[in-house]
Amino acid sequence: MSPSLLKLGIPKGSLEEATLALFAQAGWRIITHSRNYYPSINDPNIRCSLVRAQEMARYVAHGILDVGLTGLDWILETEAEIETVCSLTYSKSSNQPSRWVLAVPEDSSIRSIADLAGKKIATELVGFTRRYLAMHGIDAQIEFSWGATEAKVVEGLVDAIVEITETGSTIRAHGLRIVEELLVTETRLIANKTALNDPTRRAKIDQIALMLQAALTARRKVALKCNIAADRLDDLVALLPSLHAPTVSHLYDRRWMAVETVVDAAEVRDLIPRLRAAGAKGILEYELRKIV
Amino acid sequence: MSPSLLKLGIPKGSLEEATLALFAQAGWRIITHSRNYYPSINDPNIRCSLVRAQEMARYVAHGILDVGLTGLDWILETEAEIETVCSLTYSKSSNQPSRWVLAVPEDSSIRSIADLAGKKIATELVGFTRRYLAMHGIDAQIEFSWGATEAKVVEGLVDAIVEITETGSTIRAHGLRIVEELLVTETRLIANKTALNDPTRRAKIDQIALMLQAALTARRKVALKCNIAADRLDDLVALLPSLHAPTVSHLYDRRWMAVETVVDAAEVRDLIPRLRAAGAKGILEYELRKIV
Amino acid sequence: MSPSLLKLGIPKGSLEEATLALFAQAGWRIITHSRNYYPSINDPNIRCSLVRAQEMARYVAHGILDVGLTGLDWILETEAEIETVCSLTYSKSSNQPSRWVLAVPEDSSIRSIADLAGKKIATELVGFTRRYLAMHGIDAQIEFSWGATEAKVVEGLVDAIVEITETGSTIRAHGLRIVEELLVTETRLIANKTALNDPTRRAKIDQIALMLQAALTARRKVALKCNIAADRLDDLVALLPSLHAPTVSHLYDRRWMAVETVVDAAEVRDLIPRLRAAGAKGILEYELRKIV
Amino acid sequence: MSPSLLKLGIPKGSLEEATLALFAQAGWRIITHSRNYYPSINDPNIRCSLVRAQEMARYVAHGILDVGLTGLDWILETEAEIETVCSLTYSKSSNQPSRWVLAVPEDSSIRSIADLAGKKIATELVGFTRRYLAMHGIDAQIEFSWGATEAKVVEGLVDAIVEITETGSTIRAHGLRIVEELLVTETRLIANKTALNDPTRRAKIDQIALMLQAALTARRKVALKCNIAADRLDDLVALLPSLHAPTVSHLYDRRWMAVETVVDAAEVRDLIPRLRAAGAKGILEYELRKIV
Amino acid sequence: MSPSLLKLGIPKGSLEEATLALFAQAGWRIITHSRNYYPSINDPNIRCSLVRAQEMARYVAHGILDVGLTGLDWILETEAEIETVCSLTYSKSSNQPSRWVLAVPEDSSIRSIADLAGKKIATELVGFTRRYLAMHGIDAQIEFSWGATEAKVVEGLVDAIVEITETGSTIRAHGLRIVEELLVTETRLIANKTALNDPTRRAKIDQIALMLQAALTARRKVALKCNIAADRLDDLVALLPSLHAPTVSHLYDRRWMAVETVVDAAEVRDLIPRLRAAGAKGILEYELRKIV
Amino acid sequence: MSPSLLKLGIPKGSLEEATLALFAQAGWRIITHSRNYYPSINDPNIRCSLVRAQEMARYVAHGILDVGLTGLDWILETEAEIETVCSLTYSKSSNQPSRWVLAVPEDSSIRSIADLAGKKIATELVGFTRRYLAMHGIDAQIEFSWGATEAKVVEGLVDAIVEITETGSTIRAHGLRIVEELLVTETRLIANKTALNDPTRRAKIDQIALMLQAALTARRKVALKCNIAADRLDDLVALLPSLHAPTVSHLYDRRWMAVETVVDAAEVRDLIPRLRAAGAKGILEYELRKIV
Repeated sequence: MSPSLLKLGIPKGSLEEATLALFAQAGWRIITHSRNYYPSINDPNIRCSLVRAQEMARYVAHGILDVGLTGLDWILETEAEIETVCSLTYSKSSNQPSRWVLAVPEDSSIRSIADLAGKKIATELVGFTRRYLAMHGIDAQIEFSWGATEAKVVEGLVDAIVEITETGSTIRAHGLRIVEELLVTETRLIANKTALNDPTRRAKIDQIALMLQAALTARRKVALKCNIAADRLDDLVALLPSLHAPTVSHLYDRRWMAVETVVDAAEVRDLIPRLRAAGAKGILEYELRKIV
Repeated sequence: MSPSLLKLGIPKGSLEEATLALFAQAGWRIITHSRNYYPSINDPNIRCSLVRAQEMARYVAHGILDVGLTGLDWILETEAEIETVCSLTYSKSSNQPSRWVLAVPEDSSIRSIADLAGKKIATELVGFTRRYLAMHGIDAQIEFSWGATEAKVVEGLVDAIVEITETGSTIRAHGLRIVEELLVTETRLIANKTALNDPTRRAKIDQIALMLQAALTARRKVALKCNIAADRLDDLVALLPSLHAPTVSHLYDRRWMAVETVVDAAEVRDLIPRLRAAGAKGILEYELRKIV
Repeated sequence: MSPSLLKLGIPKGSLEEATLALFAQAGWRIITHSRNYYPSINDPNIRCSLVRAQEMARYVAHGILDVGLTGLDWILETEAEIETVCSLTYSKSSNQPSRWVLAVPEDSSIRSIADLAGKKIATELVGFTRRYLAMHGIDAQIEFSWGATEAKVVEGLVDAIVEITETGSTIRAHGLRIVEELLVTETRLIANKTALNDPTRRAKIDQIALMLQAALTARRKVALKCNIAADRLDDLVALLPSLHAPTVSHLYDRRWMAVETVVDAAEVRDLIPRLRAAGAKGILEYELRKIV
Repeated sequence: MSPSLLKLGIPKGSLEEATLALFAQAGWRIITHSRNYYPSINDPNIRCSLVRAQEMARYVAHGILDVGLTGLDWILETEAEIETVCSLTYSKSSNQPSRWVLAVPEDSSIRSIADLAGKKIATELVGFTRRYLAMHGIDAQIEFSWGATEAKVVEGLVDAIVEITETGSTIRAHGLRIVEELLVTETRLIANKTALNDPTRRAKIDQIALMLQAALTARRKVALKCNIAADRLDDLVALLPSLHAPTVSHLYDRRWMAVETVVDAAEVRDLIPRLRAAGAKGILEYELRKIV
Repeated sequence: MSPSLLKLGIPKGSLEEATLALFAQAGWRIITHSRNYYPSINDPNIRCSLVRAQEMARYVAHGILDVGLTGLDWILETEAEIETVCSLTYSKSSNQPSRWVLAVPEDSSIRSIADLAGKKIATELVGFTRRYLAMHGIDAQIEFSWGATEAKVVEGLVDAIVEITETGSTIRAHGLRIVEELLVTETRLIANKTALNDPTRRAKIDQIALMLQAALTARRKVALKCNIAADRLDDLVALLPSLHAPTVSHLYDRRWMAVETVVDAAEVRDLIPRLRAAGAKGILEYELRKIV
Repeated sequence: MSPSLLKLGIPKGSLEEATLALFAQAGWRIITHSRNYYPSINDPNIRCSLVRAQEMARYVAHGILDVGLTGLDWILETEAEIETVCSLTYSKSSNQPSRWVLAVPEDSSIRSIADLAGKKIATELVGFTRRYLAMHGIDAQIEFSWGATEAKVVEGLVDAIVEITETGSTIRAHGLRIVEELLVTETRLIANKTALNDPTRRAKIDQIALMLQAALTARRKVALKCNIAADRLDDLVALLPSLHAPTVSHLYDRRWMAVETVVDAAEVRDLIPRLRAAGAKGILEYELRKIV
């Protein structure tokens, strides 16, 4: 294997499909093969591996991989020595961030983490939870849970759990109460120092980071274009979000200007009626694949 | 519930998925939940309900809902007192409108609705059919049908049926003949007077109507852009549909102009060869998400 | 049937779905019906038939069809007298072209086609293989294979096979070795002379060819636009692929220029970082439906 | 159509698949065809039709069908003049019978049907509900509901609903309370008098009833066989349910007897340990297809 | 490979799943693997291969396989020198045998095979059709068809087709008329002489034939048992099909006899009412896995 | 909760569906509900919980559950204090037992566990592996693996893995070599002492064990019955497996005997030809639901 080849870790499991779709939009086609952990990729300078999110940071820290995508939760859990290249916010169904919360039965006397002293807690995130409580000076017994963690506190096997949730609905469906949020997690692109110090691999990592972020930005935003009488241009521009300066150009009929800009997809339904009221004609919205 | 909250009815059943997709394109993300008739929506000023298309107009007329989407057929059937905000043409598989037709066995002596006097007719649209025949001075016996209506006339249980069809193929597959078309139906956005007279809710209804129409227009049209030598501009513009004036601008090389316009998707295959013959270079077609 | 109606053959089977999707992008909606070989199409001047790729050329040569899509392999196999209108490169999963290769067991003594003299070969492409070997002066026995061709050489029923492959993985999975590539195939639009000599049908064929190619080109390319300070324009333009001249226009603020161009989708991940380094602002990528 | 041909109605929709499976077990293979309401059956003396359960009784009463399967609820709703041949207890997922219940919001003041006077009630079973209340001297307003009936009382459109349920879980999931059970329904084989008075058709109806019941009985029961020392036979037989006398025979070794009987499948898990304790050897359980 | 190992061919494709199910019932578990033509089997004396039905006879004749299952049509088509071990009637959906028929357009002047002289015929079964016509002294042109054969005669490419059908419905759906039935086909177990002359392999072939037939017989028949008063035994036995003598034994109560027999599944619905009328008690039907 | 209620743990995940099917055959219908870990069961004396196999032994040892099903591997891993009630051999696809094996790269120098001294090993079964090596006096570093364990040794992250396999094919597909088998695992019914010492719960546990084993036995065996001339009975009985004495009885025609027995399903294909050769008539095979 050439030393300049970048070893990239793709998270196997719940994030896998979304990650492949993101790379496709960013410009890399990755194809997985059954019973084989090495997907192919259309870039001769990258070698892909499928790795569980829980183990990604350890793989990167040991140099088995140069760079990989995993959650902040598992980075913190493993305390692996890695560098964060950038954050990448993309997820499955909801648009809410994933949070690790402390939950107890509705009628529990535990009201804050201070009440956890001497209690038994089940979680998949044992190391992080232990350090979090230690930081707050609380001495509790933390048990590893293989899953179905909510049931354990319902059954009375433990006093509390630390579990991941997006909307809280599974927590509530078990009759549990959220006491406190311990961690808001997100996906991160991580690398080890050796790879970052190697100019060839560093350039490839930067390219990946730039393109993944360009693709993610393009998912949240859309392009809007319209025409406006020259004398009403300033009013119209004043309505546009200031973040990105609009591209303004003269039309052939010089009494008219063409305005083009990029706005948050979520704002369009409120913005278009205002643009129209301000005299905009021929308002068009279209989707983007990348924004840099 | 705040009085300014808009109560929106989404048609449950065959139109449901298409309606959610249309709202998503228009800018609202609606998520349904199993065993629950209240989908969530990413707009704090709207509360959604899933309601059968047959009952939507009644719900809106009674003020249980402020606004809803349903078919013209069920609006007419229920004779509910509602206002039509706008028509929305979107459907399932075919591109043909849905029609309610009078059908009889191939060898029936019924040749026009005048021949229906004294006959027995099965339909799901009892009220509308009764009023339609009364208007034409015909006295017939109308029976409510729970479905499988074609079979009833084949079996001889009734003399004729009034049934909905797009292409007529199910009608023909049962050996039936279409005598007359009683109603071409379409989806409509309807509201009650109270909601329309309340400025806050009226503004939200107008926004929904504008955005849904912008999304539907964008499905039927595409954007075309090309470059043209300045001295051939007029010939090219003459080829373009006159409905939307094209956006014309000078290129850096001022002997060339850029022309951009919006045309019917169905016309593109005929238009592009003509534009090319007229000297257009770099012809590009792309899709739009909204057109206002 | 009107003589000016164009009889178009759509390949039934593995290429069918991809062909319908390509025509939809090109501007024609084709709908297939179960147990019926005549799909409907939204063009009154075309009549569609579903025909096996293997028999398409024969149908076109006999005038049963005017025009059709099929593979070069089956055109060569049938030696039908047809004209190639254009090549159309689209396929199923991989992006590699399909190739007909000569394969033998790993430990076979056959090292080149010269070693085939007197041997037995199984293939679905009997005619082509026979002529190919005859051209090279080799006398071998060619047997028609109904499928599962790889197994025949593994079982020892034949000495070698001529089989189609994209990545070679099925060949290798059977422990076979590729000796030589006999033919790289691709999809082609073919027509017969009579149709091409009839001006009405010729025009429709040309329109189909132009639009299918416009759609295929649009799949391989994307539109890129960005703004650049006027004094850095030349450096930026120098970075762009020379094939398509970019569209350059002044912005309202005349110190800035807008640049728009079309580039290979596969180049974007390398091009964007360079454009950015050259001073480009507001770089946007979007997809196209057609490029002429 | 021969007058001796029996016209049999199969309920279309939720009971359809279970009905076809029951007839298959009973000895008739019925095959449905898409877009056609006349399934084929391997009995030259029967002609099948698919009919909605709601309309079956009307079809049978009018003589369009001779015999059919439908629910007691729809028999009562339509007040059609039909004869019940036999009850047939088979259903979908749960083993609980379907019940039509009166339900109100948890906090409603309605505590019994007496409280319904002057109230508005939504139901799919309008006729039955009207007569039920009239019988109890209650005057209320009954509205036809197209479905999603629970939502109507939640929305406040009506004061109460009459709805079908098996386990009550959908009712509870909407925060409703069951006030009273109006009807326990079940599937019935029904026929009209004319068919029952015709000896040929009567014989076929009796055969169908006998075989369907034989199949249903076989689903609830299993065959058990074992050997027992002759001198312990009486103790063993005393343990067996008295409904069906066991079949007892001598073995070749005349000190042993073979005992075979049919018992409820649900009792086997309790019965086998007792048989074993009573000295039974070689206890075998096997399934039956029919029991008469 | 041991010379005593039996090489068994399983038909790949439409018969594959049904064949594996039949072997499972007969006592052999065969597991197929993706991209591999050699399924595993739980019998150390057999080695399985998946082979297309069309090529099975050729493989068996050449000794590549010892024994295999394929259709009579392909045995006749290939004229391979094989021995038929036994017929095995099992098929896909319908219970009707598959037939190769000569079909022509509804309005064709062809009324019998005598009218085929000088005509063009398309078929997948070229060799058989050629010999069949030669036997009748008819000289026609036979073309190989890759599929979609019905369309060819509809399109006018050929005058007639020879195609396989079960119910004739696809033939009729294309507006074709069946002129004559050329061949009723069925599945057969075939072997070559060498294998049949080797005692070890012959024994294994006989075992396979016996067990497959035992399983197929068990699918068509069921076991019936009942009790009868000793003095009515003769009347009861007289009702039973004479093919298999019933097993009659005394019960402990010697005034009663137990009768057990095997009857056609299709007769049970008629037989049970008669047995009951003849005094039978405790009639039970159960399914069998094998009958020898 | 009544103290006599038996708390039963069902393994959640890969064994779940097979376990529910086994209980159904044994006589208990268990229905799971989405987002709820307490399935319902048709036995008022049992309360079910879904628990991960990895945690079952801990739950049972702590008295949260009285009885549960889990694998021997996880019983050993957790070293929980539980009692084994009985072994239950049922699995997913293959019929081979699951084994935990030590695997290394094909070209590794590790040839036996003695070579593991000082090496790094990844496994999901950390505790068991550590104790196993300690027992053999080997000091190695054991790391917990979250899955995709094979990849770790391929990547070089560890020197060896301890992983579960049935056929070894996934191990081989990664180019690994099995050095040694550490544990053959199987499913077990386990309980805690308290539950076993309580007579009510003990009786229920014994009933469950008896019925589950009766169902499993019935899956491996079938019933065979045949008739034989009285004077050939001894020869025939000699052919039958001696484990279960056959049930022999006189037929009405006393020159004939009926023989019924239970044999391994896998032996039937060899046994039937021998029985037939020995003079057996009317050989029937049928399936059983329970054998005690």
